[in-house]
Amino acid sequence: MTFETTFPVWNKLNSSQQSKLLNTLITRKVEKGTIIHNGMMHCTGLILVKSGQLRAYMISPEGREITLYRLFDYDMCLFSGYCIMRSIEFEVIVEAEKDTELWVIPSEIYKSIMDESADVANFTNEIMGTRFTNVMWLIEQIMWKSLDKRLAAFLIEETKIEESNKLNTTHENIANHLGSHREVITRMLRHFQNEGIVKLSRGLIEIVDEDKLYSLVDE
Amino acid sequence: MTFETTFPVWNKLNSSQQSKLLNTLITRKVEKGTIIHNGMMHCTGLILVKSGQLRAYMISPEGREITLYRLFDYDMCLFSGYCIMRSIEFEVIVEAEKDTELWVIPSEIYKSIMDESADVANFTNEIMGTRFTNVMWLIEQIMWKSLDKRLAAFLIEETKIEESNKLNTTHENIANHLGSHREVITRMLRHFQNEGIVKLSRGLIEIVDEDKLYSLVDE
Repeated sequence: MTFETTFPVWNKLNSSQQSKLLNTLITRKVEKGTIIHNGMMHCTGLILVKSGQLRAYMISPEGREITLYRLFDYDMCLFSGYCIMRSIEFEVIVEAEKDTELWVIPSEIYKSIMDESADVANFTNEIMGTRFTNVMWLIEQIMWKSLDKRLAAFLIEETKIEESNKLNTTHENIANHLGSHREVITRMLRHFQNEGIVKLSRGLIEIVDEDKLYSLVDE
Repeated sequence: MTFETTFPVWNKLNSSQQSKLLNTLITRKVEKGTIIHNGMMHCTGLILVKSGQLRAYMISPEGREITLYRLFDYDMCLFSGYCIMRSIEFEVIVEAEKDTELWVIPSEIYKSIMDESADVANFTNEIMGTRFTNVMWLIEQIMWKSLDKRLAAFLIEETKIEESNKLNTTHENIANHLGSHREVITRMLRHFQNEGIVKLSRGLIEIVDEDKLYSLVDE
């Protein structure tokens, strides 16, 4: 895939905008675990994922994490280029959950094109609307759902992403996704194991009764 | 104030767009307590507050509420016109917290102008960025702050809005703002009273030690 075929409003740009983008575009390959963007320390630029998987999360003063949303192939990360909008005043950290290939569009270049093109500005609106929808879903989960239901939903999401019922992950890692503590997740996973829903071993969680997991979420 | 002086990007519109807006604009006066927009049952249109106070909140399947943000004079409510963007897929309820005068811009009119004007599209981006910032602040509060700190912060916010240390409000009302239960709020307010921070009487909360309230939030 090239940038031209991946960037959704490429055909709405005039040739001057197209060459401006291509001339300033940065291509990066990052390994799993790389922090690509770190809050408001630096306005990294807008990220377009070529292939791989990113996680956007926030962090408490004490270092607790909670996942806001994840980005997959062809997804765009707006908030790593937060300086394109004055009104965005929050910190997001973006890390690679898998080895990832991506493009970075410099913020000032994107902003100059967005300022003159209604198509690009409205495309940006739609991306922000999608992230807003992700985050509103998260508030619903935090506010109205108990942690066991959220854990069940997370395990289902993971089996879909990994296309496998065997998840190579740690309890610490799950706690960071859900904004919880490792001890709490361990206790809950052991409870799931006693119920015959999962089988636990070092660094591995195997889903053995998917139906029960789904019924937990829907309850 | 007229619509022309209140709508921030008025001068960026061409005369055809201006007359389109003026010809379709609806002026409304609503009483305190009126539900102006109710989730996704109807795409009400974009609301511009002339004077008054609105509250945007979400509601759980069991009817528990939590305030997302509030809107004051000259603020604009985007999500009451959610159908201008395909990617917005969440329900927000908007009610008048005070008697309010407002303008409603029909969604299809706003969308047609936003589609052709980069200025209007970018203005819309900035509003969405502001609301996103509000909501991210809310997640921080819910995730990392205990309810007593959130209650203290809410009481401080209220004294600022009302410009008074005497708040005419019920415990039920506060619970709805904070996504909590009335009993929990009553218990916490009684604790605040025992600490000499507030004085409670029927339908009234008086802040008697503002410094202590602030120190609770900053702790």
